[in-house]
Amino acid sequence: MKPDASPAATLPPWGETKVVGRSLPRVDAYERVSGSATYTIDVSFPDMLHAAILRCPHAHARVKQLELGKAAKMPGVRAVIGSATPEANIPWYPGPKGPTSRLFDPHCRYAGEEVAAVAAETPFQAEQALGAVAVEYEELPFVVDPDEALKPGAPAVQEGGNTGGETSVKTIGDVAKGFAEADVVLEETYRTSCDIHATGETHGCVARWDGDRLTVWNSSQGVFDQQEALAEALRLPLTSVRVVCPYMGGGFGSKIDLGKYAVIAAVLARRAARPVKLFLSREETFLCAGNRPANTMTLKAGIKKDGRLTALHLVNKGVVGAYPGDGGVGFQVIDLYTCPNVRVEESNVHIHAGKECAFRAPGFPQCSWALEQMMDALAAKIGMDPIECRLKNIPTESRVYQGPYTSTGLKQCLLEGAQAFQWTESKSKPRGEGPIRRGVGVAAGMWGYAGEPRAVVVLKLLADGSVNLNMGVSDIGTGAKTIMAMVAAEELSVPLDKIRIENADSASTQYAPTAGGSQSVLVSAPAVRAAAVEVRRQLLELAAEELKRPAADLALREGKVFAAGESGEGLAFSRIKGLQQRKVLIAIGSRHPHPAGKVALPFVVHFAEVEVDTRTGAIRVTRFLAVHDSGRVMNRLTYENQVFGGVVMGIGFGLTEQRRLDRQTGRVVNANLHDYKVPTALDVPPEMTCLPVDPHDTECNTTGAKGLGEPAMIPTAAAIANAVFHATGVRVTNAPATPMELLPLLAAQRRRS
Amino acid sequence: MKPDASPAATLPPWGETKVVGRSLPRVDAYERVSGSATYTIDVSFPDMLHAAILRCPHAHARVKQLELGKAAKMPGVRAVIGSATPEANIPWYPGPKGPTSRLFDPHCRYAGEEVAAVAAETPFQAEQALGAVAVEYEELPFVVDPDEALKPGAPAVQEGGNTGGETSVKTIGDVAKGFAEADVVLEETYRTSCDIHATGETHGCVARWDGDRLTVWNSSQGVFDQQEALAEALRLPLTSVRVVCPYMGGGFGSKIDLGKYAVIAAVLARRAARPVKLFLSREETFLCAGNRPANTMTLKAGIKKDGRLTALHLVNKGVVGAYPGDGGVGFQVIDLYTCPNVRVEESNVHIHAGKECAFRAPGFPQCSWALEQMMDALAAKIGMDPIECRLKNIPTESRVYQGPYTSTGLKQCLLEGAQAFQWTESKSKPRGEGPIRRGVGVAAGMWGYAGEPRAVVVLKLLADGSVNLNMGVSDIGTGAKTIMAMVAAEELSVPLDKIRIENADSASTQYAPTAGGSQSVLVSAPAVRAAAVEVRRQLLELAAEELKRPAADLALREGKVFAAGESGEGLAFSRIKGLQQRKVLIAIGSRHPHPAGKVALPFVVHFAEVEVDTRTGAIRVTRFLAVHDSGRVMNRLTYENQVFGGVVMGIGFGLTEQRRLDRQTGRVVNANLHDYKVPTALDVPPEMTCLPVDPHDTECNTTGAKGLGEPAMIPTAAAIANAVFHATGVRVTNAPATPMELLPLLAAQRRRS
Repeated sequence: MKPDASPAATLPPWGETKVVGRSLPRVDAYERVSGSATYTIDVSFPDMLHAAILRCPHAHARVKQLELGKAAKMPGVRAVIGSATPEANIPWYPGPKGPTSRLFDPHCRYAGEEVAAVAAETPFQAEQALGAVAVEYEELPFVVDPDEALKPGAPAVQEGGNTGGETSVKTIGDVAKGFAEADVVLEETYRTSCDIHATGETHGCVARWDGDRLTVWNSSQGVFDQQEALAEALRLPLTSVRVVCPYMGGGFGSKIDLGKYAVIAAVLARRAARPVKLFLSREETFLCAGNRPANTMTLKAGIKKDGRLTALHLVNKGVVGAYPGDGGVGFQVIDLYTCPNVRVEESNVHIHAGKECAFRAPGFPQCSWALEQMMDALAAKIGMDPIECRLKNIPTESRVYQGPYTSTGLKQCLLEGAQAFQWTESKSKPRGEGPIRRGVGVAAGMWGYAGEPRAVVVLKLLADGSVNLNMGVSDIGTGAKTIMAMVAAEELSVPLDKIRIENADSASTQYAPTAGGSQSVLVSAPAVRAAAVEVRRQLLELAAEELKRPAADLALREGKVFAAGESGEGLAFSRIKGLQQRKVLIAIGSRHPHPAGKVALPFVVHFAEVEVDTRTGAIRVTRFLAVHDSGRVMNRLTYENQVFGGVVMGIGFGLTEQRRLDRQTGRVVNANLHDYKVPTALDVPPEMTCLPVDPHDTECNTTGAKGLGEPAMIPTAAAIANAVFHATGVRVTNAPATPMELLPLLAAQRRRS
Repeated sequence: MKPDASPAATLPPWGETKVVGRSLPRVDAYERVSGSATYTIDVSFPDMLHAAILRCPHAHARVKQLELGKAAKMPGVRAVIGSATPEANIPWYPGPKGPTSRLFDPHCRYAGEEVAAVAAETPFQAEQALGAVAVEYEELPFVVDPDEALKPGAPAVQEGGNTGGETSVKTIGDVAKGFAEADVVLEETYRTSCDIHATGETHGCVARWDGDRLTVWNSSQGVFDQQEALAEALRLPLTSVRVVCPYMGGGFGSKIDLGKYAVIAAVLARRAARPVKLFLSREETFLCAGNRPANTMTLKAGIKKDGRLTALHLVNKGVVGAYPGDGGVGFQVIDLYTCPNVRVEESNVHIHAGKECAFRAPGFPQCSWALEQMMDALAAKIGMDPIECRLKNIPTESRVYQGPYTSTGLKQCLLEGAQAFQWTESKSKPRGEGPIRRGVGVAAGMWGYAGEPRAVVVLKLLADGSVNLNMGVSDIGTGAKTIMAMVAAEELSVPLDKIRIENADSASTQYAPTAGGSQSVLVSAPAVRAAAVEVRRQLLELAAEELKRPAADLALREGKVFAAGESGEGLAFSRIKGLQQRKVLIAIGSRHPHPAGKVALPFVVHFAEVEVDTRTGAIRVTRFLAVHDSGRVMNRLTYENQVFGGVVMGIGFGLTEQRRLDRQTGRVVNANLHDYKVPTALDVPPEMTCLPVDPHDTECNTTGAKGLGEPAMIPTAAAIANAVFHATGVRVTNAPATPMELLPLLAAQRRRS
């Protein structure tokens, strides 16, 4: 038996489910709401120190001299580090030619880069001590505008220049031929802005050493990847590093990679021989905790009058900030539609600003902004309904992963969504004559990741019939714990409140990949199912002994064993003698490997209705329908939570959010939640509906679920932009579509008409 | 496959071992010595309250009125409970006819019984508030002398009277016939005293609720049994209760059962909705945390001149205190020697004092005190060397468990011990003419428990070749963690410092029985071995793929894989691609079930040399040899630690330790470490040696180890008493053999001579 083989591989798909699919509140709702849940900031030790980081105020500078002596003597200070101390040289930011920076690099490439850090008895003392660190900077010329950065003679962000590596080119067929065959060819340049994750909980950790063993409570999306990164940074064996994060207040991709702050806290804790808490302020998270890269996407598309795409050519530039990153967006251009000729050219630009990182569906909302507006424009040009037009191009296989899809719910999403949204009727409604114009729009999307092949869980059934589920998966706010408990409850018929979950502790829980890429459910739920099925098998065997009937004749219901076809009282688990003697039944579950040769990915279609005030340029989303093929609905309530959260984030992406850099100083000028406009409750559509579409995929994995977290925000902004076009006849190509963007376009339209 | 079957069942015994058996320091030595180990008292939360318990000052009283209102209004007080509050009725102290008390029982049966409890912001405020609790007691007559307690008309401790249930009688053969056949018959009454465990760390806990889930960090010997007891007391599902105790500062049996204090802390924490820390003071542990019962043992023995025992008749009375308990001692009388006729009659006596509980080898040191002095007296009477005499009666099977022993090292212990101690030479040395007399003594023993059948571990090998070992076993100071790590290291060739252990957490670690009964190693080590062997199998399979050789040709050495018979550099685990991809190899190990129909128990022989100052009655142990058949020596250093610790505790039992009750008030008068005489460094024999005897038992379990913790103190006191007899001709039948005991005996002897 190969270590990876698991009973799950042979599990039949679920028929009718009793628990899975229901609309159930979170298993940890009480803890989260009451405040008893231990978030990272709640971790506290009596002898704990508090740390703070000194950051470079210049967009580009060299630390000529760093004097830590005075700070070290400040009241309450227990440790001070900076570029002068040996740990400063821990390599940071891997690039193609090796690390491009260090923990404290004297060459600072953006305003906010780490220069020194202090641990003191109180947060106030730590802040005060930062003021006593004497730094002599050599200020250097900088560039924060991506177009300027690419001009000859621009200040170099990286030694290799500002182009951030080779241009990546992917080609299918021959776009020139495709354009020649087209009846209509359109070309447009779309721009999106740099967005900040703006997580509810900021980034931070508590680091504590026990001898040469380190525990870090870190607000993070994946304790195992962070364990690996910390072990590497500090050159420790994996088992000497423990990362814990049972509760998390939002990450959206910004808590996947290990933050410098966590290493800094660990180093300070080692120096002081005391636990150290280090949390970034809201402002700091805007500077250094990552962002969604701004993209400039020029898309050329050809289409036949019958609605079939003939060619798609995307040229994309992603602004990755000061260090190597991924500004790519091309996936959907290749895979969302069956276009025979596709060319995607992508390159990156460095500027003197914080580095991009993964942000909910990295690259996909940007791509949708371009591709789905283009689809809308093409459909309009050939006089076809945009839904009809998309239906002409439904794919059955992935060209990126080179294999057929296990299921493609895109068609179903378009058709069922159109009906539910009353698309045809809505489209033909009057758009308004006065200053307020109404319109509807639609946009499609897909998500391009089906998860890592590996996850492990250990499930235990205790003598009283309660269950302990031990798994590595982080519940980053998605409800993953609830869904895993429901899977166990489904197989074991144990009530949810008797299932206790231990999760997201790299030492005491089992391996799971980082919660990102919408993979938690589809990777870990099959492992939970496998373990639960194995424990059920053991339990039925013990019950069979007790009841003197073959195990095959027995079934579980409400924590009891029943003989098939008999009603009666049943045998409560807690009364099975074999279970009492054994104290615990235990099984390891691992994930069913990826479906051989096939590709399992989720699809999505969003419908928006907007009102545009043509006097102020304000866009109000009045009605929204999110139609998703994410496979089986595991929990209707958490499903809707995910979708509505994604849609609201998509509204922010499309209408309001935008990091702003000051060209004079290179600094972020809106590094706070007042000036950076995250949608509020008032921006949420008054009518928002979620329509799951289930293609009953029996091949994707043993639960039938595909990813949901990321699809939920992919086409939102594009659907809104298309609705704005429908309402006003104006196409907003730059996101966010703020009044500042829209008003000049409306004015120009008025001049034209 | 039955759930309990495990690969270990078919594991061959170890041949030569590389790690197991070595003298290695503890894997957690740094944590324990540096203070970074988190003992229960180190657990702290920012919002934690401190609790204190009000105890009845009378040996027997009824709470007529309890007024908590004033205490509740004292500064800092957040919760007050007592017999007036509903939780008071939680049943406590199970007896044959049901619970005999409650959490706060208005009927107080000993001085120290719980009356009320308070949680406040500071320990001082909690203590102050106790003073504000108004209690009106009805004082009742009491009895603290066991002989008085059995007289007609004595104050009743329990409703059923003071005899504590039926007399238990066990009979083998016919003792009357045996005594008739004997050449010599002796009868003597031996008495032992009530001893207190006097653990380094007192009893205490921190209780914290998360919603309806309770976590208790409790200084305890077994987190799973305590989880069960807490769940029952608070009527919660098992998985809603988590008990944690990774480090422990001594229990010796007094931390097996759930303490009232833990339930009190949980109840206070629930009422206050805050975590609560509740630690007993040293004095409180003397009153309520259990003790070794005092025993009065009348032993009649018959022997042939050739040294064969013909009959043993024991009548034992155990003083169990105010509540039902076990004062039995008879095991060794039945099983240590092959005596054809045995009768054991045992009964208990209640007095108005704290309840007995398990104490290192419950009943066995008391029995040894009687049986081994009797053996010495019998040998003297028939003019036979006491070792010779014991060799005539070596057993091969257990009559208690009704099966043959897997091994009986008793003979080997006697012979090898006699040689190492230079028994014959020592015995014939002059005993001294002046006031200081010298003598040597020997005593044998056995321990009567081979552990529960069930333990589970989960072992993980991580991508860099480090190991995570997850097991429930508590390391109560014995070095269990170190031994388990060594077993994993043996099978996986991983260095000890790359093995991280998670243990003794009822939620996140695997089931293990309570650390007591000398069972940890023999129950959990086979489970560790089974898991390690299975992970090795998986690893070798991956290495076989990589090296393109059959797994059977590969071996592990120093964290690398080598082809059999080849030297070379080897393939480091961290370079095996299959391991990198899988991230973790994982296996469940469970214990090989008990050997079918056989009994695996350890044996022991202790040799003592003493100097008795006949003027002062002071006894000094000048030389000590402890010879043990506990099967395989897993770690020579921790083995010696256990043995020396046991011997010193045995010296305390034999010479100094004794709880004293005041007959006027019924209170404990020496409830502190000044007046209660635990041996100090100065009481440790200047020459103390440990001689392991290994019968190479291949049947007891897959490690060959039998229990050690308890045998280490069983015959110590008897060996010393026999040496005192050899030195002085005086037999001390009452333990401890204080000068107050010895001087009158010496005086009487002088009068006789």
